[in-house]
Amino acid sequence: MSTVPRRDGTARIGLDLGGTKIAAALVGPDGTVLARHTRPTPARDGADAVLGQLAAAAAEVDPGRAATALGVAAAGVIDPRTGTVTSATDSIRGWAGTALAAGLAERTGLPVACDNDVRATAGPELAALAAEHASLLFAAIGTGVGGAVAVDGRMLHGAAGIAGHLGHLPSPYAAGLPCTCGATGHLEVIASGPAITAHYRRLSGTTADRLETVAARAAEGDADAVRAITTGAAAAGQALGGLANALGPDRVVVGGGVPRVGPLYADALAAAFTAELMPPLTGLTPEPPRFGHDAAVLGAAALTASLPLHHPGAPR
Amino acid sequence: MSTVPRRDGTARIGLDLGGTKIAAALVGPDGTVLARHTRPTPARDGADAVLGQLAAAAAEVDPGRAATALGVAAAGVIDPRTGTVTSATDSIRGWAGTALAAGLAERTGLPVACDNDVRATAGPELAALAAEHASLLFAAIGTGVGGAVAVDGRMLHGAAGIAGHLGHLPSPYAAGLPCTCGATGHLEVIASGPAITAHYRRLSGTTADRLETVAARAAEGDADAVRAITTGAAAAGQALGGLANALGPDRVVVGGGVPRVGPLYADALAAAFTAELMPPLTGLTPEPPRFGHDAAVLGAAALTASLPLHHPGAPR
Repeated sequence: MSTVPRRDGTARIGLDLGGTKIAAALVGPDGTVLARHTRPTPARDGADAVLGQLAAAAAEVDPGRAATALGVAAAGVIDPRTGTVTSATDSIRGWAGTALAAGLAERTGLPVACDNDVRATAGPELAALAAEHASLLFAAIGTGVGGAVAVDGRMLHGAAGIAGHLGHLPSPYAAGLPCTCGATGHLEVIASGPAITAHYRRLSGTTADRLETVAARAAEGDADAVRAITTGAAAAGQALGGLANALGPDRVVVGGGVPRVGPLYADALAAAFTAELMPPLTGLTPEPPRFGHDAAVLGAAALTASLPLHHPGAPR
Repeated sequence: MSTVPRRDGTARIGLDLGGTKIAAALVGPDGTVLARHTRPTPARDGADAVLGQLAAAAAEVDPGRAATALGVAAAGVIDPRTGTVTSATDSIRGWAGTALAAGLAERTGLPVACDNDVRATAGPELAALAAEHASLLFAAIGTGVGGAVAVDGRMLHGAAGIAGHLGHLPSPYAAGLPCTCGATGHLEVIASGPAITAHYRRLSGTTADRLETVAARAAEGDADAVRAITTGAAAAGQALGGLANALGPDRVVVGGGVPRVGPLYADALAAAFTAELMPPLTGLTPEPPRFGHDAAVLGAAALTASLPLHHPGAPR
């Protein structure tokens, strides 16, 4: 079921850390998920408690200690070279600055690779592209707007692991709107789920607490709801089209919760994307992710083959 | 005078092909320029004539045949892997589709590497960064808006060699303006030299045929001239700031003819750039190029160390 086989014939553990839950999988040499486990993230209890629960989840999927390495995907800005959390929101208390790789290596006795969760999830998408030097633009549009960018066959990290922050590209549709980052006019404040919901409230003067409400009203013909959704989609499509011109991807994937709104969203995004493209990119269209529910843990396990490993007992 | 020494102790030839002239240099093992030559580009005579003049320029700087390889930087979309010109404007007749590397290897008997001229020029800037995994955003703002992007220590090429086309990012300042690529609202149509001049004509209702005229009027206090220049600068700064958020560069360089307008331009660009940045990038500021007149030929010679070489007699 996976296209991410391990070349050296050993099993790996993949961990996906989110603000509410930890997902763990033992991934066999052929890329098959051999065991799965989830448990809550102790988000209010600090970094040490989170590292402890990550290690416990790893032990749960690998009681026979078959795995030879562990990959962990986590929210926030993660630097795979230093193995630390460069910066993070407060969704996990005290998470910024955590020595993620060293802390997990110490607790599990395994060599550990780590990266941002979106890059990890995009990894199997890149691996599935046929060409050796393939390029991929991967957007994750949900509570925020994130992404991952791979060019010439390599996932990009950038200074301090920042590459892929697609939500902070300027968007004409967001002109004048304050962004969470402190700037104004960024994609995220018109295109994320909460941003589309807020835009609908501004347009209609009515209340709505979540995107599903806006989507239901759009389905009933509410013009303000249609406009808020198609504006968010067009803003995302335009920004991704411009970035495609600047980077030359072979494939563009749009994932996350917001595209689940349906064809109204997907059609507006595709139209805006296509309208931006330079002639050499004609024919490129945004596609849904190839991999489903297991993408994050499979991608996390695959990090152990592509990124620096942090070994137990190594100086932090 | 250069920071691009050759590791294997041999001399290389660097060629820079523009629409009006060919520049050639013999570059010694220590990166010093040992000989220089320029001659006109026979732009109206077709690709074969241009290849002939490139080979003649190479022979001129290396009469003793000391060079062991040749690098050529050329305008247009160049694919270094296939060694061909993917697409190009008509500034050189019949240039699109030319087998640049194979054609020059055949005419000179040397292994040849080729790339886009902006990427070649940016190469020495990347090499001069101290960190092994450094990232660089390089913009060239002149008759058009081009650029080069290097992330994690590698110059990006992308599908069909497209990476670096920074002029076709969407810009709120260009909303509704038709772009040369067929789309609307792209950075190039508000930020290039001719675009700033055209914007001044629209604002003032007066005539002006070149950027220098607009700059001179701005210096005399013409408010429309000041506005056209600062709008072009702000559009460029905003787009580069957003791209910095998405890619995480360690250094941002703005070169080309337009920044020579002076502090009015540079200050507006820097202010708009800074206003876009996410907190982890605070302190990053656009800088002028480190390398002057020889950057293109030095960068071209350096391509022979970083890109695939196309050998004489190899199948095209």
